[in-house]
Amino acid sequence: MSNEISSPFPPAVVLLSGGLDSTTVMALAREQGFAVNALSFDYGQRHRHELDLAREIARTHGLARHVVVNFDLRAFGGSALTSSMEVPKDRNLDVPDHRIPVTYVPARNTIFLSFALGWAEVLGARDIFIGVNALDYSGYPDCRPEFLHSFEAMARLATRSGVEGTPVTLHAPLVQMTKAEIIREGIRLGVDYAFTTSCYDPDGEGRPCARCDACLLRAKGFREAGVPDPLYLRFGMKP
Amino acid sequence: MSNEISSPFPPAVVLLSGGLDSTTVMALAREQGFAVNALSFDYGQRHRHELDLAREIARTHGLARHVVVNFDLRAFGGSALTSSMEVPKDRNLDVPDHRIPVTYVPARNTIFLSFALGWAEVLGARDIFIGVNALDYSGYPDCRPEFLHSFEAMARLATRSGVEGTPVTLHAPLVQMTKAEIIREGIRLGVDYAFTTSCYDPDGEGRPCARCDACLLRAKGFREAGVPDPLYLRFGMKP
Repeated sequence: MSNEISSPFPPAVVLLSGGLDSTTVMALAREQGFAVNALSFDYGQRHRHELDLAREIARTHGLARHVVVNFDLRAFGGSALTSSMEVPKDRNLDVPDHRIPVTYVPARNTIFLSFALGWAEVLGARDIFIGVNALDYSGYPDCRPEFLHSFEAMARLATRSGVEGTPVTLHAPLVQMTKAEIIREGIRLGVDYAFTTSCYDPDGEGRPCARCDACLLRAKGFREAGVPDPLYLRFGMKP
Repeated sequence: MSNEISSPFPPAVVLLSGGLDSTTVMALAREQGFAVNALSFDYGQRHRHELDLAREIARTHGLARHVVVNFDLRAFGGSALTSSMEVPKDRNLDVPDHRIPVTYVPARNTIFLSFALGWAEVLGARDIFIGVNALDYSGYPDCRPEFLHSFEAMARLATRSGVEGTPVTLHAPLVQMTKAEIIREGIRLGVDYAFTTSCYDPDGEGRPCARCDACLLRAKGFREAGVPDPLYLRFGMKP
């Protein structure tokens, strides 16, 4: 997109999936004064529809740059999001279940953050933002604070910037927030959640299934925040 | 390639570029009794010819599997290997130079290892092999032992296997060896170096330039090992 060479704002790389969390993080990074370089991934996910929304979000917010990196994790498989395995529906997320669900994509956040690290180095960005969340989440190991701290430590040894004394900082501003808190924060920032998606298994038009873990967590968040989900309103569904 | 489900050998993921180092590591992993799952990357590198050799190496050694993951790091640029920047030639590598050269690809090994981590998890492999070397090397930050240790620690927090008590081990058996020692080890293991490539800037047929850092380090290694480089013999060049 437009070139930011003369921008007075320091560049940051923001992982942008097109979902509720990462869109909120993008708005937070902008509020903090960063020129946002958004990074998305076309990795063979079944909910590839999210990329259309990520492009739309980047365009409507006039982000500095938006890059979509393509690779195909279906070559590895091992997840319901990248294979023919079924996405679980109607799980009771109030019952603690310490197993990692089949929607976990092996090493996905490690891969995403590694690309962010490479791009940050080329841009001269010292800040990377990721919208992971360890409260209202699906139990993925790579959404936990201890993983993020460890990735940041590794990143400082991996790159030229770390060696030369300008290491990157990994920001995960949502990590200890509930989904309802995230939604309230996004509304304060003016995020239009009608054009964000969370569903793992949407139909061809992007209509959410309302039954996968991601839909259930999103619905719980809007319920607790006391506002209707504008995505549901957009599709004429009952929020 | 062939399916290893009934293999008595534990699976390992081996990063295989088609170069001298990674081919030696592949042979070492086999000697140690692993079923080798080789992983290569088509990332927009100018020396893409190396992938032809990686495929040939996987085939001639009957490896369990060989996957080539495609993505395009030219979207980021920032390296002579993925942009129109010139590859430096005829540098005097005996003169210490603590600057990181322009052939460094930002976060490349972090990205490669992240994919290896994801595949290892799907395969149930607890072992990842990488052919980095911190002695006769070009000064890349992501070839140093401290980076590798930090990546391994991060990997154990990133994945299901780490959480469930079967963490991965990252093997870098060449990290403290000279190029000559690596070559002697490979010859002992029966590696045919005529079908490995190191050059950053080969011609269309894969003929090495003999002048980039990678060619100079390789030539120094063969000279010190006291054997002619069979790759040069194959091309009718003076070793």
